[in-house]
Formats: sequence, structure tokens, C-alpha cells
Amino acid sequence: MCAEKVRIALVQMVCEADPGANLKKACQRIEESAAQGAKIVCLQELFKTLYFCQTEEYEQFALSETVPGPSTDMLQKLAAEYEIVVVASLFEKRAGGLYHNTAAVIDADGSCLGKYRKMHIPDDPGFYEKFYFTPGDLGYRVFKTRYATIGVLICWDQWFPEAARLTVLQGAEILFYPTAIGWVSREASEEVRRPQLQAWMTIQQSHAIANGVYVAAVNRVGTEGELSFWGNSFVSDPFGQVTVTADECSEQILLEDCDLGKIAYYRSHWPFLRDRRIETYGELQRRYID
Amino acid sequence: MCAEKVRIALVQMVCEADPGANLKKACQRIEESAAQGAKIVCLQELFKTLYFCQTEEYEQFALSETVPGPSTDMLQKLAAEYEIVVVASLFEKRAGGLYHNTAAVIDADGSCLGKYRKMHIPDDPGFYEKFYFTPGDLGYRVFKTRYATIGVLICWDQWFPEAARLTVLQGAEILFYPTAIGWVSREASEEVRRPQLQAWMTIQQSHAIANGVYVAAVNRVGTEGELSFWGNSFVSDPFGQVTVTADECSEQILLEDCDLGKIAYYRSHWPFLRDRRIETYGELQRRYID
Repeated sequence: MCAEKVRIALVQMVCEADPGANLKKACQRIEESAAQGAKIVCLQELFKTLYFCQTEEYEQFALSETVPGPSTDMLQKLAAEYEIVVVASLFEKRAGGLYHNTAAVIDADGSCLGKYRKMHIPDDPGFYEKFYFTPGDLGYRVFKTRYATIGVLICWDQWFPEAARLTVLQGAEILFYPTAIGWVSREASEEVRRPQLQAWMTIQQSHAIANGVYVAAVNRVGTEGELSFWGNSFVSDPFGQVTVTADECSEQILLEDCDLGKIAYYRSHWPFLRDRRIETYGELQRRYID
Repeated sequence: MCAEKVRIALVQMVCEADPGANLKKACQRIEESAAQGAKIVCLQELFKTLYFCQTEEYEQFALSETVPGPSTDMLQKLAAEYEIVVVASLFEKRAGGLYHNTAAVIDADGSCLGKYRKMHIPDDPGFYEKFYFTPGDLGYRVFKTRYATIGVLICWDQWFPEAARLTVLQGAEILFYPTAIGWVSREASEEVRRPQLQAWMTIQQSHAIANGVYVAAVNRVGTEGELSFWGNSFVSDPFGQVTVTADECSEQILLEDCDLGKIAYYRSHWPFLRDRRIETYGELQRRYID
């Protein structure tokens, strides 16, 4: 197994009301990540804003922007300067009345490789995303960056094994999950909270195992209105072992060296891709088999 | 949420060379399970024999039997007598030269509801199953037993999220996984062994989470040749919390009361089935997207 280690950085932040201040902080964190040797940096979901989906308010659409647009312009310059890949989650304005939850992927030469639009959109008390975001229509994608072939999926996507599988089948070596997940304040007991955090980690570790791929989840921290974002950004190796975890409350740049050689190692020792019964999977396209 | 609790029993056993002795022991365990109030009992994978797939030997085909056949006849009588559902994994002889790794499902009135033939067949050092078993051709199935609608998947199937999903989409409330998994003796270090056990648990917990379903895994114990079967039979609730676990070395009847009301509770609070992007899942039927 040859050593092909790629250092990645996950930027776990507190956000404030001013998008400019959040963007500035994110840029500083990208510079710090580069200074620490990171080659790919991933920002948390909707890093430029507070998590505005806690309520349904028309004026919040003003927070959207085109992608590419002013934010990606700034990040592309930074990416080129530091020769670092940047994954940036933004509130995309596609047209008046048409918005997406989108991640742009910028290569280490500053070029924009493309974008992924969140495919699975939640809508639950405190997370009214179906009001804001049209479900993605670009499908599952991989981006051949200078340092690795990566896939990007966003938050709610993490609960769907189908999304991880479809991204890995295209060649992803690392799956990045920009995320904004937290506890609702009325659910204060640890008995309710711990299983939520554990389920969130378990399901993502399972994508690593099922697909023999690195998984990197980047979550926000801080309390915003009724939500306490639970941090715990982490990296799982291709056999589901969580190798690094950020803490629950504080800002952090989480670094990990991903050994891409481990992917083929685990996939040959646990050859699940070899044995999928693809001719029997057609009914996965059904809502329910009744 | 109404309380619809169903007590299940997982029979974790050591096997010996004599199939008759194993069958006798299994029958005793079924009686004991019934005496302890279990309504559904699941035996481990290939409970009648040693795990013969460690080598490729033509004479081992003599261990096979028809399903239904002599073993199911005996188990059906027991099921009727104790009004207990029995899931029994057997080496099925379908025709000369055509064999399956099959689980029969017997209802509490002693009738045979049908069988599931293992869909995903492993083949790795120590687990030469592709020599013995033709991949299943009955598809993923559910069985409407007197006490619950159950799905049965077998061992290697547990690594494939597709199999769990396809079974749950048909209405499964509990997924049973009869299993024979262990460590190979040359991999003696805990550093190698723990991640294997953890990955095995994690991937199955993830099926519970993604689908809002109970998962019950039944593994064997004991050392046979080069393999140490790792026990650790367990039950996960529909949010991925492991509520009971058997130990690593000894025989055990693991009991758990499954509250079927929790299924709708978790599926509505974490509504993943609502949000699947089924129109985008067609390429799951591809081997690789290249």
C-alpha cells in the first residue's frame, strides 16, 4: 500500500448575524488551515449566515447569492494563493423564487470545479428547509481536485445510504458533509440528546464502511434561537473508525491526514462493492412496496 | 403511541460436528425461549452444522437438506406446540449441484410461511461461501407472522444498505440477521479485531436508523478451526440504540421486548422515508459509474 496522505481541515465555527463577518472568519480559518498543511478545507453548511431556516420569513431570501458569485470569487482567490481546495456551502439564488442549498468546490488553482445542490431537503420543527430550498437537480457528483477525488453531500443527505453510494460509485475517495445540526432547546435531557448525536455519527460511519471511503462531517457550534448546534465534526476512516472528533461547544479547525491507500485496502479485504446484487435493486426507486 | 411489545429471543450457540446434536440443542433453546415469554425466536446462521465453509470440500454437500424438509418438520411441530415464531437458517439442497443458504420462517401455528435465500454471498479466506451457495433468487421478503411483520437477511447481507432498505419498504418491523462471523486466528491483535466487531455493529445499527426498524443480529460463538466466532448478538432499536448485547464467548438466549409503536414514532420524528429522492436512485443498479 503506497502512502498517499492528504491533510484535510474541517472548519467548525460559531456564526453571527453579519454575513461579512462570517465570511471573513471563514477566510481566516482557511488561511490557518493552509498554514497547518491542509490541502482540502471544508466549511460548515451555510457558513455565511445564521441558520435562518428556524422560521419561514420571506425577507431571508435576501441572504441568498449567485454561485459562482461574490463569495466564490473571494474564496477562489484564497484557494489559488494558498493552493488549497475549498468546499463552501452557500445559499444559492438561481432565479427569483428559486433557491438551492449549494456547495461550491474550488480547486487548488482557484478554478471553480462545479457545485452540488443538496438533494434531500428536511422539513421539521426548527428546520424549515423545504420553504427555502428547491431539491437539487444536479444529481450526485464527484470533483476531481488536485489532491483527491471528492464527493460533497449536505446535512440531511447524510441519513440516506443511497446518496453516499451513488457518489462513491463515481469514484469519490472522501465524502464531505457540511452540516448544521443541533438540539432543540425544549429537548433538554441527555437521554434524548445523546441518541441523536450517536445516530448522526453512526449513520455516517456506516457510509464509510459500506463504501470503503473516508467520511468528513463538518458541523457548526453555538446557540442560535431554539437550536444548540452540537459541533462534533469528525472524520471516519474507510472502515468506520472515527479517528478525530471536534468538541461540542467550541470553534475548532479539525485536521486529519487521510491515507487514500487505505481505500483500496479495505475495499479488497471487505469486498462489498464486488458483491452488490445490482440486478435486484430496481425497487429502490419505489416510495414503498405496497 | 400504543404499546405493542413483542418479546424476541436470539439463540447464540456453540456448534459441534453432529448435526443431530445441534438441532436438539436448538430445539431445547426454543423451548426455553418460549418459557421465558418469547414470541419470535431466531437461530444463528447454519445452526445445524459447524461453519463448513472454511474449506472447499465436495463431501460437505451431504450436510444439505431440502427446505421444507426434516428439520423444518421438527421445528414446525415445536412452533405450533409453543405458539412461537421460528426463524431457522439451513443449508438448502434445491437440486443436485444447486444449493442455497436459506432461512425458513415458521409461524406460531406451525405453518411454514416461506423462505429467504441469502442474496449476497461472501468469498474470502475462511469464508468460501461462493463454492457452496448459489446467490438467492427469491429476492428480499417479509413474512407476516402472528406477532410482527419480519424480514430475514443473512450474514453478509448485513453489509448492504440496499438489502435492508428493500426489505423495510415491504413493511418489515424487525430485521433478523442470522450470522456466522468471527475472527481469523492469524489476525490475533485487538487492534485488528475490535474495528471488525465495531464495523459489524455500526453497519447494522445504521440499517435501524435509516429505516426506522428493529434490527436483531444472531451470531454463533466458539472456535472452529481457524475461526473464533465473536458472539455479540444484539438488538438495536429503530434509532440505532443497542439495547441488549450477548457476550463474546458463551452461549446465551438474548431476550428483548420490541415496542413496535416506536417504529412509527421514529419514522415520523426522523422522516427519512418521506424524503427519499427515488427518481434519482436508478444508477444504484450499476456496478460502478465509470
